[in-house]
Amino acid sequence: MAHLSDLEIANNATLKPITEIAQKVNIDEDALEQYGKYKAKVDINKINKNEEKGKVVLVTAMSPTPAGEGKSTVTVGLADALNKLKKKVMVALREPALGPIFGIKGGATGGGYAQVLPMEDINLHFNGDFHAITTANNALSAFIDNHMHHGNELEIDQRRIEWKRVLDMNDRALRQVNVGLGGPTQGIPREDGFNITVASEIMAILCLATSIDDLRTKISNITIGYTRSRKPVTVADLKVEGALAMILKDAIKPNLVQTIEGTPALVHGGPFANIAHGCNSVLATETARDLADVVVTEAGFGSDLGAEKFMNIKAREAGFEPSAVVVVATIRALKMHGGVPKDDLKAENVEAVKQGIVNLERHVDNVKKYGVEPVIALNAFIHDTDAETEFVQQWAKEKGVRLALTEVWEKGGAGGESLAQNVLEVIDEPQSFKHLYELDLPIEEKIETIVKEIYGGKGVSFTSKAQKQLASFKENGWDKYPVCMAKTQYSFSDDQTQLGAPSDFEITIRELEAKTGAGFIVALTGAIMTMPGLPKKPAALNMDVTEDGHAKGLF
Amino acid sequence: MAHLSDLEIANNATLKPITEIAQKVNIDEDALEQYGKYKAKVDINKINKNEEKGKVVLVTAMSPTPAGEGKSTVTVGLADALNKLKKKVMVALREPALGPIFGIKGGATGGGYAQVLPMEDINLHFNGDFHAITTANNALSAFIDNHMHHGNELEIDQRRIEWKRVLDMNDRALRQVNVGLGGPTQGIPREDGFNITVASEIMAILCLATSIDDLRTKISNITIGYTRSRKPVTVADLKVEGALAMILKDAIKPNLVQTIEGTPALVHGGPFANIAHGCNSVLATETARDLADVVVTEAGFGSDLGAEKFMNIKAREAGFEPSAVVVVATIRALKMHGGVPKDDLKAENVEAVKQGIVNLERHVDNVKKYGVEPVIALNAFIHDTDAETEFVQQWAKEKGVRLALTEVWEKGGAGGESLAQNVLEVIDEPQSFKHLYELDLPIEEKIETIVKEIYGGKGVSFTSKAQKQLASFKENGWDKYPVCMAKTQYSFSDDQTQLGAPSDFEITIRELEAKTGAGFIVALTGAIMTMPGLPKKPAALNMDVTEDGHAKGLF
Repeated sequence: MAHLSDLEIANNATLKPITEIAQKVNIDEDALEQYGKYKAKVDINKINKNEEKGKVVLVTAMSPTPAGEGKSTVTVGLADALNKLKKKVMVALREPALGPIFGIKGGATGGGYAQVLPMEDINLHFNGDFHAITTANNALSAFIDNHMHHGNELEIDQRRIEWKRVLDMNDRALRQVNVGLGGPTQGIPREDGFNITVASEIMAILCLATSIDDLRTKISNITIGYTRSRKPVTVADLKVEGALAMILKDAIKPNLVQTIEGTPALVHGGPFANIAHGCNSVLATETARDLADVVVTEAGFGSDLGAEKFMNIKAREAGFEPSAVVVVATIRALKMHGGVPKDDLKAENVEAVKQGIVNLERHVDNVKKYGVEPVIALNAFIHDTDAETEFVQQWAKEKGVRLALTEVWEKGGAGGESLAQNVLEVIDEPQSFKHLYELDLPIEEKIETIVKEIYGGKGVSFTSKAQKQLASFKENGWDKYPVCMAKTQYSFSDDQTQLGAPSDFEITIRELEAKTGAGFIVALTGAIMTMPGLPKKPAALNMDVTEDGHAKGLF
Repeated sequence: MAHLSDLEIANNATLKPITEIAQKVNIDEDALEQYGKYKAKVDINKINKNEEKGKVVLVTAMSPTPAGEGKSTVTVGLADALNKLKKKVMVALREPALGPIFGIKGGATGGGYAQVLPMEDINLHFNGDFHAITTANNALSAFIDNHMHHGNELEIDQRRIEWKRVLDMNDRALRQVNVGLGGPTQGIPREDGFNITVASEIMAILCLATSIDDLRTKISNITIGYTRSRKPVTVADLKVEGALAMILKDAIKPNLVQTIEGTPALVHGGPFANIAHGCNSVLATETARDLADVVVTEAGFGSDLGAEKFMNIKAREAGFEPSAVVVVATIRALKMHGGVPKDDLKAENVEAVKQGIVNLERHVDNVKKYGVEPVIALNAFIHDTDAETEFVQQWAKEKGVRLALTEVWEKGGAGGESLAQNVLEVIDEPQSFKHLYELDLPIEEKIETIVKEIYGGKGVSFTSKAQKQLASFKENGWDKYPVCMAKTQYSFSDDQTQLGAPSDFEITIRELEAKTGAGFIVALTGAIMTMPGLPKKPAALNMDVTEDGHAKGLF
């Protein structure tokens, strides 16, 4: 069983018609826009809402290994386990980016017997959402360059345009480009660059918008650059927010799919978890809460990144309070944080697990700081030994934190029942959710709070560039936004080699970015890659299509 | 009635569920992949085919005015008229590009009461086909740059890469760009440029492919550039044809929609009519022939461009013979070719119509050269006078060519019944279709045949660049491909100011492009724009979205 690939398992699964999945959560056909037989967009104005909103369970993780700890897999498996326990449950997940699949094997739809389906469609163009975002993003670039070409009434300084073009592609040659070359009929020459689509501010906006009207407003607030006198220029100045919102009129609707076990899943939006907030859309989560009693959702990377932003950006914007937080841990990640090199992670090493547990401990403590009860999901891998697993179980017992062993990759929902029981106990208890910081704190203090409380660092320093930006942001009235930290996911610090639970470190804020449309200030620590490259032998070399039109070699 | 906009008329129409439209041509639900309630992709492997293939009626036009002569409108109206006459009929049309709608008002889904619907969906992302083509095109660019970055085993010369990136956008600033800037981790610096997606060779390939396997083969044959020793490098050398075909696995399926009057329509593919062949996909036309007795289809621009390529490229590739050709003419275009300036076209001017008729005459004669009977559709506009119309009718009578007055914009199918009757008479007569030239002629002679026979010119000259290319194409074995002429649509000559029926002109071939994937040689005359720009006040400024998610100001 465990020897089949994710794609083979996905292909062996028998999918139910999406209309049947919709019925499970009382969505009428009238509210469904089918995309083939197994995918649909949901018209949120036409759904039958529950009287009471469903409870939110967030799945986060300890600091990951480069291979990942199976967070999406546990998210799906937990929902399937709750489904088995007869709960009215939905999953709310991010959509995977298309570009990276051509690079290195690995999808974002769960794995093994805990996947959302149809896997090949979700991993390819999936109802066109990312393509629409790419189009809206690049239309804005075209409008900017066109405005400058035709007289530049707004006096945009071509050296101070912050808005970049995007493609959903791993393409390093586009990171830095010169555009507008070739003479006076070909635009204004200037420096530009392409990000990957998930890094577009329009992606972040789509994921934080609460309606099409709110989307339009947020888009109008985007700062695209500055004039020569450093006055911000917005989309509203260009008067194209209506056109851009129109491009996104279908992309804003959540996508309904199913897990292998037939649990309804909303998969919608996928912003980066470093330079953006790393959570699926507010609309998908809120729609799931309108339809189900329990919503299982995830946020990118660990409690220091996705979960922190989930709590302080997404939950704040949407106005909900999470009822439980699952922290995914693995023996191999614990060993890595205990100092074991990548190639030795398969060998038993209880001592390293003991050393590495400090990483998990800080993530668990972080969750408690929001007033929400954590549940550790120890996600089983084939090389784990009993001694290693027992150590972690004993540690959790002593610490007084709930822990459940999960085997959802191999067993689907049946492998997550203990986790589900734990989660159900927690969400029935009263929680006392609070944000980590208030919005009226100065930007510096918001960052300092995150660094000290969540990262466990001793302080923050700002480069002179960042200091200048802080001053100008304050002048522009941009100091009431929440902060979106861009940091490596491998360490609590901004140095990815500092594993475990480092504490004697300072975080350096290299640069800030004002995302006045999405409504947050990005604080960049170290070099964050917003356009990946492809490896020497990209996964694309093994991809193909069958004669009847199915994907081969996708995963 | 005539005072409503196309979008208002479209919004007032009551659409039938696409399943009902499918039933009209015996498509089972099993073969339908619904995209919402009113659009579907058709799985061509699961349709019920007629015993006999349907007959093909091509709609072309005289040399157009910049405003267009209503070719798509007549195509739709003719099909609706045939439908009214109880014929089993389908329309096969091109998909409109997304980028241009933000520039100048005007769609590509017909107009008035002769439109295909849902208009706003077809004009926006329409089932993601163009986005998939953009993705495949740019993935290939990323694979090329990645190959060079990682050692360049194939020894691709970065100065001789012919493959360009694309976006479905009017964006002049991307016509000429430098990529790979920023140092050794950011790729190899080189010159590049973006075309609009409809100019991608992958668009042309998708429209000429006869199966997913054929698509894959054609993609593998694309020449992406040359080595330092001028050896062609193909996609097959890069080994990514499988991945690129996989990206297109859904885009290759024809899209089923309906006209306002409920006639089934396949709208699929949309290559440029100058640097590409300007016809909807072979698969859509052939699928329509499998399902209906009469298929009405169009080709871009006049008989000198789209129709010529329809006959010599598409019909040859697909292996069918058109049974009738409709030539759309308008009084205003006749006046323009008679020398009337744009601003005076509304005033009666019978003399100018007389002068301009030579343009229509040459188009009609061109059609006859393929052994197919032409029918003129004189497409009524509100400013036409009886005297002008009567002159054209009398002229046609004297010339012995069929002519029908059409009022399909205002009356839908009812305004096209006379045209439909004429077409039905023609398709019941035996035709003697032949291509204009055989493939084993040298490239120069193919071009000369087109210039003399179709354009009415006296000869061809080649720049020294084009001469060198001819020699190297011959060396590479590329001389058996058909020719795809890139020429202005406004004149038979390569000078757009030469209206009417010029004859004392030479055509200069400035440059050639070998499209070894699509399987044709593009011959460029004059400057052909492959990436449009936006006007000073783009149509985007008037676009918006309603609170319930519908497009506003689209047309």
